[in-house]
Amino acid sequence: MLTLSRKALTMPASPIRKLVPYAEQAKKRGTKVYHLNIGQPDIASPKEALDAVKNANPVLIPYPHSAGIESYREGLAKYYQNIGINVGINDINVTNGGSEALQIALAVTCNPEDEVIVIEPFYTNYNSFAIQNDVTLVPIGTSIDNGFALPEVEEFEKVITPKTKGIIICNPGNPTGTLYSKESLIKLGEIAKKHNIFIYSDEVYREFCYTDEPHFSCMHLEGLEENVILLDSVSKRYSLCGVRIGTIVSKNKEVMSAVLKYAQARLCSPAYGQMASEGALNTPAEYFKSVRDEYISRRDLMIEALNKMEGVKSPMPMGAFYTIAKLPVDDSDKFAQWLLEEFNYENQTVMLAPAAGFYATPGKGTDEVRIAYVLNKEDLSNAMKCLEEALKQYPGRTI
Amino acid sequence: MLTLSRKALTMPASPIRKLVPYAEQAKKRGTKVYHLNIGQPDIASPKEALDAVKNANPVLIPYPHSAGIESYREGLAKYYQNIGINVGINDINVTNGGSEALQIALAVTCNPEDEVIVIEPFYTNYNSFAIQNDVTLVPIGTSIDNGFALPEVEEFEKVITPKTKGIIICNPGNPTGTLYSKESLIKLGEIAKKHNIFIYSDEVYREFCYTDEPHFSCMHLEGLEENVILLDSVSKRYSLCGVRIGTIVSKNKEVMSAVLKYAQARLCSPAYGQMASEGALNTPAEYFKSVRDEYISRRDLMIEALNKMEGVKSPMPMGAFYTIAKLPVDDSDKFAQWLLEEFNYENQTVMLAPAAGFYATPGKGTDEVRIAYVLNKEDLSNAMKCLEEALKQYPGRTI
Repeated sequence: MLTLSRKALTMPASPIRKLVPYAEQAKKRGTKVYHLNIGQPDIASPKEALDAVKNANPVLIPYPHSAGIESYREGLAKYYQNIGINVGINDINVTNGGSEALQIALAVTCNPEDEVIVIEPFYTNYNSFAIQNDVTLVPIGTSIDNGFALPEVEEFEKVITPKTKGIIICNPGNPTGTLYSKESLIKLGEIAKKHNIFIYSDEVYREFCYTDEPHFSCMHLEGLEENVILLDSVSKRYSLCGVRIGTIVSKNKEVMSAVLKYAQARLCSPAYGQMASEGALNTPAEYFKSVRDEYISRRDLMIEALNKMEGVKSPMPMGAFYTIAKLPVDDSDKFAQWLLEEFNYENQTVMLAPAAGFYATPGKGTDEVRIAYVLNKEDLSNAMKCLEEALKQYPGRTI
Repeated sequence: MLTLSRKALTMPASPIRKLVPYAEQAKKRGTKVYHLNIGQPDIASPKEALDAVKNANPVLIPYPHSAGIESYREGLAKYYQNIGINVGINDINVTNGGSEALQIALAVTCNPEDEVIVIEPFYTNYNSFAIQNDVTLVPIGTSIDNGFALPEVEEFEKVITPKTKGIIICNPGNPTGTLYSKESLIKLGEIAKKHNIFIYSDEVYREFCYTDEPHFSCMHLEGLEENVILLDSVSKRYSLCGVRIGTIVSKNKEVMSAVLKYAQARLCSPAYGQMASEGALNTPAEYFKSVRDEYISRRDLMIEALNKMEGVKSPMPMGAFYTIAKLPVDDSDKFAQWLLEEFNYENQTVMLAPAAGFYATPGKGTDEVRIAYVLNKEDLSNAMKCLEEALKQYPGRTI
């Protein structure tokens, strides 16, 4: 039978993508659309990354090693060692972006119907990777009122069952921008140790922390060497989203040996992307400082503007470049579509990511949106003005 | 529990890779190792591909469209139209190499325990992708005596069950180099139509056909538009193995819509690789002519040398750049290891791919090896001399 698989039927279309046709129509009508919906940085990549590709002059492009180009893994090991993560090249496997890193991490550790705990709201594609691996995601809720802080130990204990294989942590978090405290992660580590489960630690926003403390990685947790699988990516760190280079890092040798078998099956990660990523390891500290300063000033502008709008509420995100804001609307899906289909303010409108797609629990997030601050301040300021006007005019306004 | 998944435990390590440590040791002892074991072309990529990357001068590398860069898909559609495959950009999804193309094709069409027919010997990673998707591969044997020709209709009928979801065809074939005739593919199409099953048509070696007939694609089969899923790649065509760009092509809209959902989950295929691949579409015809001439002369040299060796037998492959040769040895796994561990001829040896890894049926292929002719003629000639001497000296020789 020429039928689709159950997984293909269950797999959600990207909730961020589904509004794209409306955005295209708005643009055709001559409306400028500010894209607050997608975490695509607008900041230039480091010259070191781009030049590594430009100056490579290959004659042909052979398969790199399935685990990643050795010199790149050596450079990565040093990068991690510099931030107190004590790993060598055999603890690292280069992947097709952070996406494949999580996909393989789940594939090598989870059997069908195993459970993995996620903290709501979470990056929407966790859901897709769970479906692909027949894994059941078990969500634990957080609250906008305390800035989506990591839930208390008791909340985890309540949902851990014999089927629980691990916990996915995203720190700093997409979609909330929340940065977890060292203390809360140590408690999380104790839970993982006690129940002998994995921590899948998505740290792709590591370089985007807006406190004076250095980023605390789950790889820093003592005694958890067998439990922690780090998922990483160059996408956001160096504005290299399109090169598709991520990494799986773990001190668990059995896991890494299984990861390599999966990596061998798909042969290798992209060679050009690895060249760029290896070059990016030479990015000077000033690059990160200026990027960080830029995001902090954008964040401050945006969060202040949001909280000044009547009925709007956003915590102050301390990492990444997103926030989840609560809006005075009946349904943020409808509102986001209305913004593109029916609204404009001086021929401008905004595109938002409705937050329901970031929750597994039905009905949650319906009055929330994720907003990415990846526009320059002038555009961001105009976008905030648009949103303010839109909330005044929207027929489904709730206050 | 910090245990691996059943799939991870079942997944084979790459049979081509398992000899790598022995090859490294041989090199350390100062022995030159001729790599006949891997299909890594040594021929330069077209200038058009490499220049497209070199001259791109991006400022940052954003996510391309999940289905692939639109202009690249437009170019690809023209490429296919030129060879009589009538597709548009919405029938094409760019993937992370041909590997991901097959992986997604199986994922979107097969449920656990569904069966997919493969023709033995077959590309070893089909096995890995089947395991990843819980698919049972059902092998049909071929014979070295008729050049591994496509089995008769009756052989397929014998193994088709209600669980059969489709047939994987690799044409021209890896590992055999066999090129299937138009007539045999039309018969195959009739089986697929009759039983309402898919044809997963792996045509990554399309440009390497050594007859005067144009390549006949399963996409040319009339009335099979809903059944055929084409899996393609730029890896071999342009010596761009490392860029990780492949494609899934199908006129089946349901399939393509499911493919896009999988593609969205991993965001996109690599941007640099797509740039190179789009550039490669401008490769002049002379490039393919000279590459084809080169492979034909290598093949002729190698096949003649093989068949002159006592007890060795190889058909004349009419496509790709491999052959499966039968050797007078007790066990080609042992022989391949012995070549690297204990043998040298004037400080040279050869690395072969034992053929058992290309069979699903236990015990098959144990006196066969896959040999790739991706070395220049001088090296290839030296490698053949080594092999000839080795077969004289090997203690497990059977004649």
